[in-house]
Amino acid sequence: MASFSRLVRFLAKDGRTYYGDAILPHGVTDIAKAKQAKIIRGQIFGKHDVTDQVEDIRLLLAPLALDDVKTVRCLGLNYEQHAKESNLPIPKFPVLFYKPITSLAGPTDPIPVHPLAQQGTGLDYECELVAIIGKPCSDVPESSALDYVLGYAIGNDVSHRDWQLKHGGGQWSLGKGFDGWAPYGPGIVSSKIIKDPQSLQITTKLNGKTVQESSTKDMIFGVAKTIAFLSQGTTLLPGDLIFTGTPQGVGMGRTPQLWLKDGDIVEVGLEGVGSCVNRVEFTKARSKL
Amino acid sequence: MASFSRLVRFLAKDGRTYYGDAILPHGVTDIAKAKQAKIIRGQIFGKHDVTDQVEDIRLLLAPLALDDVKTVRCLGLNYEQHAKESNLPIPKFPVLFYKPITSLAGPTDPIPVHPLAQQGTGLDYECELVAIIGKPCSDVPESSALDYVLGYAIGNDVSHRDWQLKHGGGQWSLGKGFDGWAPYGPGIVSSKIIKDPQSLQITTKLNGKTVQESSTKDMIFGVAKTIAFLSQGTTLLPGDLIFTGTPQGVGMGRTPQLWLKDGDIVEVGLEGVGSCVNRVEFTKARSKL
Repeated sequence: MASFSRLVRFLAKDGRTYYGDAILPHGVTDIAKAKQAKIIRGQIFGKHDVTDQVEDIRLLLAPLALDDVKTVRCLGLNYEQHAKESNLPIPKFPVLFYKPITSLAGPTDPIPVHPLAQQGTGLDYECELVAIIGKPCSDVPESSALDYVLGYAIGNDVSHRDWQLKHGGGQWSLGKGFDGWAPYGPGIVSSKIIKDPQSLQITTKLNGKTVQESSTKDMIFGVAKTIAFLSQGTTLLPGDLIFTGTPQGVGMGRTPQLWLKDGDIVEVGLEGVGSCVNRVEFTKARSKL
Repeated sequence: MASFSRLVRFLAKDGRTYYGDAILPHGVTDIAKAKQAKIIRGQIFGKHDVTDQVEDIRLLLAPLALDDVKTVRCLGLNYEQHAKESNLPIPKFPVLFYKPITSLAGPTDPIPVHPLAQQGTGLDYECELVAIIGKPCSDVPESSALDYVLGYAIGNDVSHRDWQLKHGGGQWSLGKGFDGWAPYGPGIVSSKIIKDPQSLQITTKLNGKTVQESSTKDMIFGVAKTIAFLSQGTTLLPGDLIFTGTPQGVGMGRTPQLWLKDGDIVEVGLEGVGSCVNRVEFTKARSKL
């Protein structure tokens, strides 16, 4: 569908922000290592051209501008081993929740932790394959669902377990929706290139040590099945993101439990896409309540 | 903040769609009864002018164009009597969930019920005051929170109890997010006019019979407290909608339970704002899974 291979949005050396098609050195697949990109002109979800104009990448940004994003959906408990470590039943249907678009952040942005989320325990990481919808779809069958996918990224569904599970009346959104709690990127690899999203290694490293390591083949509801299910009676739009759940190894599921702290470096990675490396930064409130 | 009093979006007799400031006959407060509006030019959340150009209203549409909406937040269990009828505890903090922007619909649009939501039982209504954020805000104190509100509308948080409560793994989003399941309007009354959103009568009529009747003074977390709470570490944006929860009287809480069926007419109303009248329409899927 898309004319690009690896969509990036970046601050260029000329000080401007562009959409581009990342140029990777031979043998390299991690978009985070791209030094240059061909500039894309036009609408990402509409008519656009990959031009011959090459610019140097100074900084990779969240792959989509906020104005190009519509709705951020997330699945819970979509890897069997993660459902088990969470002491929750294997779901019969996809477990759906949402994050606000303001939670989105770039592949090297800090993860700001507001004082509200510094209280109690439970600051946690979740590496997830992110599918980006490229065309409107509704009631699509599983067999053609991937035709509506623009491409794939890796994301971190940052979560605060106390606010997610204890103080939200059972609804998970509160503990997952803070500003910057959904870094993703480093770019979006076109579904022309990743034809099968269910055979990719997915990992999290915390301060360099691997803490999550699995394959997207272990998803309970694969991307195609998820899109077919979610699009029943609900129109998915270009610019919708779907975070497709995390495998085992989250801090909550470990013995002893392992919570993120100020200054930690979290790296989430997806085979064929690359990695996001984000630093946890405890912040102050902008004013007092 | 806004220069208009009662924002409407409408199809005019000239066949075009406009934003306008509704003109109400003397003594009338229900925006649904407006026959004319002064055309608004410019950006609703930016620079705009209420002009002297008057157009006839043929049909009121959802008050905001989809491109002007960002995130739709909803509160659960925000009226004490409704929490009790739901057999759920009174929440200590606002219970937050989301609806996708595709659930939004206009004040007289049908409520489409997809075959998935025709299964089982539990199709229900929920009248709710909707607060529309007009300026970005983050960590705002309760005392100034209402300064960030563009205005208020009445909405219906249409819900399918089986999908909400039984098949969603405990997360409510699935049973509340179908296309068209958040009709709202009939316009947005400026917060210049409604200075106190906590003293308004709120009702639902089903086929003409009153089934919900309460006052927004019974909210557990009022609009100001809700915005102060939700904006902690989370930036609320112009075009964010907050559905602030429903009072007692929903179909689930009645004896015997009362579920919406094909052809039912549901009217939700809010004092000083007006009413939305929507017909339940069972539909077919666009294709088979």
